[in-house]
Amino acid sequence: MPKISIKNQNKVFEYIQGKNLLELLVENNIFVDNPCNGKGLCGKCKIRLIEGNLSDLSETEEKFLKEEELRSGIRLACLVTPYDDITIEILQKERKHEILTTGYIPSFEYRPSISKRVVEIKKPNLDDQTPFEDSLCRAFDIQHIDWNILKQSEVTYGIVTGVFNGENLIGIELGDTSDVLYGIAIDIGTTTVVTALINMNTGEEITTASMINPQKKFGLDVLTRITYELENPKNAKEELQSAIVNSINDMIEDMCNKTKIDKKHIYEISIAANCTMMHFLLGIDTSSIGKSPYVPVFSRSKNIPAKDIGLKASVGARLYCLPSVSSYIGADIVAGAYVCGLHKALENVLFIDIGTNGEIVLSNQGKMLSCSCAAGPALEGMNISSGMRAAEGAIEDVKISEKGIELQVIGSKEPIGVCGSGILAAVKELIRVGLVKKQGAFIKKEKLESSDYRYDMINLDGSKREFILSENPERLLITQGDVRQVQLAKGAILSGFYALLKKAGIDINDLDKVIIAGQFGAHLPVDSLVGIGILPEEVKDKLSYVGNSSKTGAYMALMSQDVKGEIEDLAQKMDYMELGASQGYERLFAECLIFPS
Amino acid sequence: MPKISIKNQNKVFEYIQGKNLLELLVENNIFVDNPCNGKGLCGKCKIRLIEGNLSDLSETEEKFLKEEELRSGIRLACLVTPYDDITIEILQKERKHEILTTGYIPSFEYRPSISKRVVEIKKPNLDDQTPFEDSLCRAFDIQHIDWNILKQSEVTYGIVTGVFNGENLIGIELGDTSDVLYGIAIDIGTTTVVTALINMNTGEEITTASMINPQKKFGLDVLTRITYELENPKNAKEELQSAIVNSINDMIEDMCNKTKIDKKHIYEISIAANCTMMHFLLGIDTSSIGKSPYVPVFSRSKNIPAKDIGLKASVGARLYCLPSVSSYIGADIVAGAYVCGLHKALENVLFIDIGTNGEIVLSNQGKMLSCSCAAGPALEGMNISSGMRAAEGAIEDVKISEKGIELQVIGSKEPIGVCGSGILAAVKELIRVGLVKKQGAFIKKEKLESSDYRYDMINLDGSKREFILSENPERLLITQGDVRQVQLAKGAILSGFYALLKKAGIDINDLDKVIIAGQFGAHLPVDSLVGIGILPEEVKDKLSYVGNSSKTGAYMALMSQDVKGEIEDLAQKMDYMELGASQGYERLFAECLIFPS
Repeated sequence: MPKISIKNQNKVFEYIQGKNLLELLVENNIFVDNPCNGKGLCGKCKIRLIEGNLSDLSETEEKFLKEEELRSGIRLACLVTPYDDITIEILQKERKHEILTTGYIPSFEYRPSISKRVVEIKKPNLDDQTPFEDSLCRAFDIQHIDWNILKQSEVTYGIVTGVFNGENLIGIELGDTSDVLYGIAIDIGTTTVVTALINMNTGEEITTASMINPQKKFGLDVLTRITYELENPKNAKEELQSAIVNSINDMIEDMCNKTKIDKKHIYEISIAANCTMMHFLLGIDTSSIGKSPYVPVFSRSKNIPAKDIGLKASVGARLYCLPSVSSYIGADIVAGAYVCGLHKALENVLFIDIGTNGEIVLSNQGKMLSCSCAAGPALEGMNISSGMRAAEGAIEDVKISEKGIELQVIGSKEPIGVCGSGILAAVKELIRVGLVKKQGAFIKKEKLESSDYRYDMINLDGSKREFILSENPERLLITQGDVRQVQLAKGAILSGFYALLKKAGIDINDLDKVIIAGQFGAHLPVDSLVGIGILPEEVKDKLSYVGNSSKTGAYMALMSQDVKGEIEDLAQKMDYMELGASQGYERLFAECLIFPS
Repeated sequence: MPKISIKNQNKVFEYIQGKNLLELLVENNIFVDNPCNGKGLCGKCKIRLIEGNLSDLSETEEKFLKEEELRSGIRLACLVTPYDDITIEILQKERKHEILTTGYIPSFEYRPSISKRVVEIKKPNLDDQTPFEDSLCRAFDIQHIDWNILKQSEVTYGIVTGVFNGENLIGIELGDTSDVLYGIAIDIGTTTVVTALINMNTGEEITTASMINPQKKFGLDVLTRITYELENPKNAKEELQSAIVNSINDMIEDMCNKTKIDKKHIYEISIAANCTMMHFLLGIDTSSIGKSPYVPVFSRSKNIPAKDIGLKASVGARLYCLPSVSSYIGADIVAGAYVCGLHKALENVLFIDIGTNGEIVLSNQGKMLSCSCAAGPALEGMNISSGMRAAEGAIEDVKISEKGIELQVIGSKEPIGVCGSGILAAVKELIRVGLVKKQGAFIKKEKLESSDYRYDMINLDGSKREFILSENPERLLITQGDVRQVQLAKGAILSGFYALLKKAGIDINDLDKVIIAGQFGAHLPVDSLVGIGILPEEVKDKLSYVGNSSKTGAYMALMSQDVKGEIEDLAQKMDYMELGASQGYERLFAECLIFPS
């Protein structure tokens, strides 16, 4: 079999001819950024051919690759098919991301679903041949025992500790173990997964772990992954499920190793996630989420044996999945709405989670209405010419003034790309200094005096205008196309915002509070949000940030049975409006595309 | 690696040195009768060495094997260890057994736990994005759906049929399938497994399948298998479980193929079995059953997803395991007691299942008391010098008279051994004609005139007396040891019988009815049972036979939810007495050893 050698990673693997290079690399767990999931649409999966031959250069590659890149052997992995031994170089490094794990937690009473009870089980004898099952029932004063308990437990007598989920016995431990009881709270995002190990006796968050959602290799966004599942009906459901389950298991293992806690003492795993991630997690078909009328298979909460999906904790551990509202208002948003108290708000509060999908919930004194807007990945730095995720080397803030362009780079390194907050800051500045106009077009270079400090910032690539963000170590541009991506995202979110207010009959001036939730939103300053017009000027002073409220919701559900009930109730009560189906939405969207002047 | 060739089966396999020949043969699924499970106690695992060398002849082999056998290369597989290439001959054939699958069924109302309901599920649209789960709940008017249903079912709209276990949805089928619904009723015996495919809409038994319990390779009786589990803590539980589960799956597959029924329409499997077999089936530890105070892990009924133990039917199919009373009064006896109406008897009825264990239930006008006696395998033709199971060539009846010895052989073939009913008949005749005395000893040959017709029937092997049952094609004997085995069995059962009566305070003359249950019992004529004194003379005219009432009980539970409840109630109400722990039992046992004169 022919071989592929990765020179700068010292890896070699054999392959069977027929698949494209990207597929082969992904199969071999070699990271290549491919936001469009190998559709030839994003031009990101660049690799450098060092030795050997690849299929001929395609038109698409010519479009995406600069002449200089072509000369140095750069190709797009998804568009080339190797047929012989080759040696290549991988150009992107998988970078350590900064993932937000904390946030605001309201005070609440700890009353977990999981509890322990210590009893003594009498040893049988020839005059009392009570079966072990009946001895357990008698000792714990319960009517019924799940047969899994009988299968898992040693027949044991004397002091034992029963672990209960509500009234159901889910575990038996030898001796008195009432002082050890752990749980896991998880937020599964499309991009990142955040896990916390919780002492369920005290509520303390002992440690956390986080990682990039490993499903990214099946597509960066929800729809690409659903499409992957549709196109691979045989294995995809299992691949997507085991990708996330395995990484959760890895994180649990890591946290337990680090803290010397035995994972057999973990009895509940509480998870918030968007609706699609929840379907993937349970291995449930997502195809109906991906197409109109966008109906999920389920939105209710689930409380099932964790082992049934392969999660590794105590054998009897439970998995609690928070409820969603609809395909595009998931448990992450429900969790956030609960954490922010939207269900019992006395004012008019708007909750917004900005990401690839922008989810907005408006609470009109507790009456909740939600919508979801397809913002696209631009706000997270994706589908942007120099875009990258928030990691070392990413430009995260930009200031343009007569003194030039001032950049703030994560890790104070040389800039190698621009992340979501960076692209927003850049566009906001371009608007502020007049380089980008209301309608989103770059100003014509000839309209600027050559003495204008802005003159040299604009580059002309043929007739295309672009902004030179940085020249060192490589040229980073904001293209007209990039501005359009941001503009579409802005239009999507702002129109959702207004549509909700309109449907609820609330004037923007009657809005008391706007809460920005989520990992990504926490990095978006008010200036950028309002400066670009993602949010209107009127709410500028009403903004607050709540952090990863999804994980917080999962944590609260873990620590309280009552919270579970209240969250389920909240999800039931939250209304959802499908923007695409609402009257006049297209006109509203067009209006919302206009940048502030 | 060295090889073992089985000449008369055209099989060859490689092996790693160190194990004894029996272990190697069993591992390679080659049938060798080994009642004592390779302990060197029964002398049954004979093989003939044709080429190559084996370890030296042991004293035990010298004891068990005749000189003639030794000369022709016969060895005991469990006592020899091969170390080089060998060729052997397997001496026993796995014979087709006659297995009883039918019996008496009382009339009862069909009201299965499983039912079907046909509904229409409305297709969602942009104005009604109801999740599939909620559409199902609404259509079926139920509150909750098990997540497994969501995982297994296609998202589908229009006419669908829901399959329910009580109030719980366990399956969804496209279109109206209300006319197809099947179930399986099973009796798992230590020796045989009997399966029936039932049309749950009509109660009709469509077809049956039966086979030898494949766990026999881990020991012929319950205790040997428990010991096997104890000695192989790593794999045995799984081996024993998958042996029985796989063979049930095979039988289901066969019955479905034969009748062109799709097994995805099978929604319940109802099983009766003795308590140990039930533990093996569910993969639950049996060690506590095997040692005093003989406590099972469970005795209650179980109703669990059939797929959880690997049974292959519809994905949502249920497994119902009938309840036991104690370690040695299993669900098979409970089923039999129910079928015979012991719980509502208006008279005094004694129910007896004769086998390796003899289980006896006495119903004193509905008040039930049970016991179990370790009869040993003699009554089934095991541990008997010329013993074999009831199969072609087995002597099943014997008459001794002045005209000589008259034999009845299964299949009207030449006799090659004697089965349970044959050994009973032989001993009964030996007693009747005075060749065996009250205390169980053969009469001294010198006490008979040489003109006596019985004179030549007695052979002297040194000082040991034995009865020549047959000379053609080979000599078949009833030895003094064989008579002792039967005597021990008789003593065990009869003493259980009397102990129960005594405990219940019932005089033997007040007994109205004695029911002989079970596959094996059905082949034991009244003459033998009373002639040997397994049962006392007084009950001679009160005997009736009920056949495989264990399978019948499983069938009735399958066809009626009410029957399930009544059977569970019956099991709760049945008392159990541990014979070994009852006062004066040893003396009673000794008295019961005496044969009738």
